[in-house]
Amino acid sequence: MKFTCNRDLLAEGLSIAQRAIPSKSNYPALECVLIDVSEDLVLTGSDTDISITYQVPVMIIEEIGSALVNAKFFYDIIRKMPDIYVTIETAEKGGNLVVNCGNSHFDVPTINPDQYPKISFLEDNENILELPASTLKTLIKQTAFAASVDSARMILRGVLIENADDFLKFVAIDGYRLAVKSSPSAYSEDFRIVVPAKVLIELSKIIEKSESDVRFCFSENQVKFYDNSFSLVSGLLKGEFPNYNSLFPEESKCVMTVKNQTFIDTIERVSLVIVDDKKWFVDLKTYPDQVFICATGEYGKAHETVSADISGQEVLISFKEKILVECLKAIEKENITVTFSSESGPCIITSEEDDSYFILLMPVKNKSR
Amino acid sequence: MKFTCNRDLLAEGLSIAQRAIPSKSNYPALECVLIDVSEDLVLTGSDTDISITYQVPVMIIEEIGSALVNAKFFYDIIRKMPDIYVTIETAEKGGNLVVNCGNSHFDVPTINPDQYPKISFLEDNENILELPASTLKTLIKQTAFAASVDSARMILRGVLIENADDFLKFVAIDGYRLAVKSSPSAYSEDFRIVVPAKVLIELSKIIEKSESDVRFCFSENQVKFYDNSFSLVSGLLKGEFPNYNSLFPEESKCVMTVKNQTFIDTIERVSLVIVDDKKWFVDLKTYPDQVFICATGEYGKAHETVSADISGQEVLISFKEKILVECLKAIEKENITVTFSSESGPCIITSEEDDSYFILLMPVKNKSR
Repeated sequence: MKFTCNRDLLAEGLSIAQRAIPSKSNYPALECVLIDVSEDLVLTGSDTDISITYQVPVMIIEEIGSALVNAKFFYDIIRKMPDIYVTIETAEKGGNLVVNCGNSHFDVPTINPDQYPKISFLEDNENILELPASTLKTLIKQTAFAASVDSARMILRGVLIENADDFLKFVAIDGYRLAVKSSPSAYSEDFRIVVPAKVLIELSKIIEKSESDVRFCFSENQVKFYDNSFSLVSGLLKGEFPNYNSLFPEESKCVMTVKNQTFIDTIERVSLVIVDDKKWFVDLKTYPDQVFICATGEYGKAHETVSADISGQEVLISFKEKILVECLKAIEKENITVTFSSESGPCIITSEEDDSYFILLMPVKNKSR
Repeated sequence: MKFTCNRDLLAEGLSIAQRAIPSKSNYPALECVLIDVSEDLVLTGSDTDISITYQVPVMIIEEIGSALVNAKFFYDIIRKMPDIYVTIETAEKGGNLVVNCGNSHFDVPTINPDQYPKISFLEDNENILELPASTLKTLIKQTAFAASVDSARMILRGVLIENADDFLKFVAIDGYRLAVKSSPSAYSEDFRIVVPAKVLIELSKIIEKSESDVRFCFSENQVKFYDNSFSLVSGLLKGEFPNYNSLFPEESKCVMTVKNQTFIDTIERVSLVIVDDKKWFVDLKTYPDQVFICATGEYGKAHETVSADISGQEVLISFKEKILVECLKAIEKENITVTFSSESGPCIITSEEDDSYFILLMPVKNKSR
C-alpha cells in the first residue's frame, strides 16, 4: 500500500472515523482505524455497535492495500505533521507503516488487517430518505437529550424515528420527560424505527459543519446515515416504544408565557442553594402576572420573581432543576409557553414561535416544601 | 453587618481571596471567606499556609460587623446575581446572611466568625521592595515551573529570591534543571529568602491583569506581597538552598542556535511515539548545520531534522521530552542557544535576545539507544 494525500483532509477523515472507535478495547484491532486503498482511500472505525467509513480524497495511489493502525496515535501524528502532503506506505500486510511528511519520518507498527472484524454495511435499498443536514441536526438536538442514558429498558435509550401523515417525527422519552420534534416529510410510506440516542449524537457531530443533504436508509435490523464522504451504520433497538400520544394530558389548569432566557437564568441562580438534586427541588408558583421561583437546599433558601403572562388558576409545582433547565434550553426560542395540567400531572413546554416541537415534563413531589 | 456594593467588584475580590481557600478542609471555617466590614470591606481567605486579604470598594456601609460563609458557594451566587448592586446583611454573628439583588433574595447559613483562625499578617517593615507587576510575573513564570513539586527536600519546592550585586534573582531547581532569572534591583541590602513555588504561582494569577507596582516585604519567617487592593502572606521555606553557581559547567563541547518554535514542534511531534516518558527519551544529534531529533517508543520510531547554527564537536544526547519542552517554552524568544558541555553533563539553554535568563538542563542516559 502506498499513497499521498493532503494532511488536513486525512486528519478530518480520521477525526470522523474515530467517533466509532473505542479508546480501550479487549480486542486491540478495534482500537485501530482500518486504512483501505483501492480505487479510493477509505477509513473505517467501529466498536461493532456503530461503524463509520469515511472516504478521503487522495492525490496519488501508487500501490493498493490496507493497514490497521492505532487510531488515536495515527490521528495525533497526522494532524501534527509539518507539511501539507503526507505519503504513507506499508511494504506488507501487518508490516510497519511508514509515514513521510517534509523532514519528518515515522515508522509505526501495525496489526494485520485480516484481524479486523467483518462489518456488514447496509447496502442502499428502497427505503431512502433525504433531508438537509441542518434539519437532521435540529431533529437530533431537540430530542436525543431526552432519551434515557441508563434505563434497563434498552428501547428508552433510543430515539423513535417515525414517518406518518407526511411528517417525520423524532421522539425520545425517559422517566421524566418526552420530547417530540417533527418535520415535513416527502417520504410516502409509514415506518417506525428506534436508533440509539448516542449514535444520533455522534451523527450530529459528524454533520456539524455540513450544509448538504444527508440520506438515510434502513432494513429490519440496521440503519445507515450517509453522504458522499461518510457512512454511519448502527443496529436498531428492538422492542415496544411507548405509545407517547396517550401521555399528553387533556386538561389545562394554567398557561404561562415567559421570556425563556430570563426564566432559565433565574431557575439556575435560585438552585445554587442545592447540592444534592436528588433530594432538593425547585418550586414554581404562578401569580396573575409573575412566576415565583424558590428553592431550599444545603446552602439555605433563595427566591426570585419573573414577569410572565399567566392565565388560569394558580399552580404550585416542583421540578428537578437540571431536567427542567435542559428542557427549556432545548426550545431555543425567545418566549416559551408552559401549560400546566395540574400540580401533580405533566406540563407541556412549547413555544408559539415553533409548533413543530413539544416537550412533556413530569413534576416531582417536593416533601420538604 | 450591612453593606451595599458593586456585584462585579465583589465577585472579583471573592475570586482572589478564594485562591487561598481549600475546597475541602477538615475545619469547615477554612472553606469559608471571612467578610469583614468596618471602615472598608475586606475579604480574607486562608489555608493557614497562605493567606490573602482583598479590599473591595463599597458603596454604603450601614452597619459594621463580620460573617463567615462558604467561599465557593458565595462566589457562585454573587457572580450570577441579576443586578449590578448587591446588598448583604446579617442580623447577628453566625446568623443567616441575607443577600438581596434586584428581584433575587438569598438566605444563607453562616459560621460564627469567632471560629476563624487568627492569621498573623506581616506588618509593613523596613524590608520593602517594589517592582512592576509585569516584571514580577516574568520572574515567577520563568522560574517557578522548575521548582520540584514533590521533593522530600521541602526547600526544593520553593523559589529562591536573592538580592545581590544590584540584581534581584529568582532561582528554582529540581533534579533535572535549574532556572535563573534576574532583574535590576534598586534595593541595596543583600538577602536570600525561599518562597513556596505554589504561592508564587497563585500570586502571578492574582496580578495577572495588573499593570501597577507590587510591593513585597519579609521577616525571618514570613513574606508579604501586596498592592492597594490585595495582600498575600506566606511562610518562608527554611533550609539550605543549593549553591547553584557551582552547578554551571565550565567546558563547552558544542553550541547550537535554533528557531525555538520549530525546535519545540519537532520534539513534540517526534515524541508522539512515546507513551511512558519515564522509560523512553528523545535523542538529539548535532551536525554542522542541522540537528537530528529522534525517538523510539511504544508506537515505533520517528525522526526529523531541523536547520541550526552549530559550532564545536558533534554531540549525541538524550532528554526527557516534557522537561526539555517546558524549558524551551519558558524562554519565549524566537531563537534559543543551547551550549552542550558534554554528552552526559548539563547543557545551558539561553537566548541571545535575553541575557537575564538561563536554564541549566541535565540529560538522561538512554539505554535503549
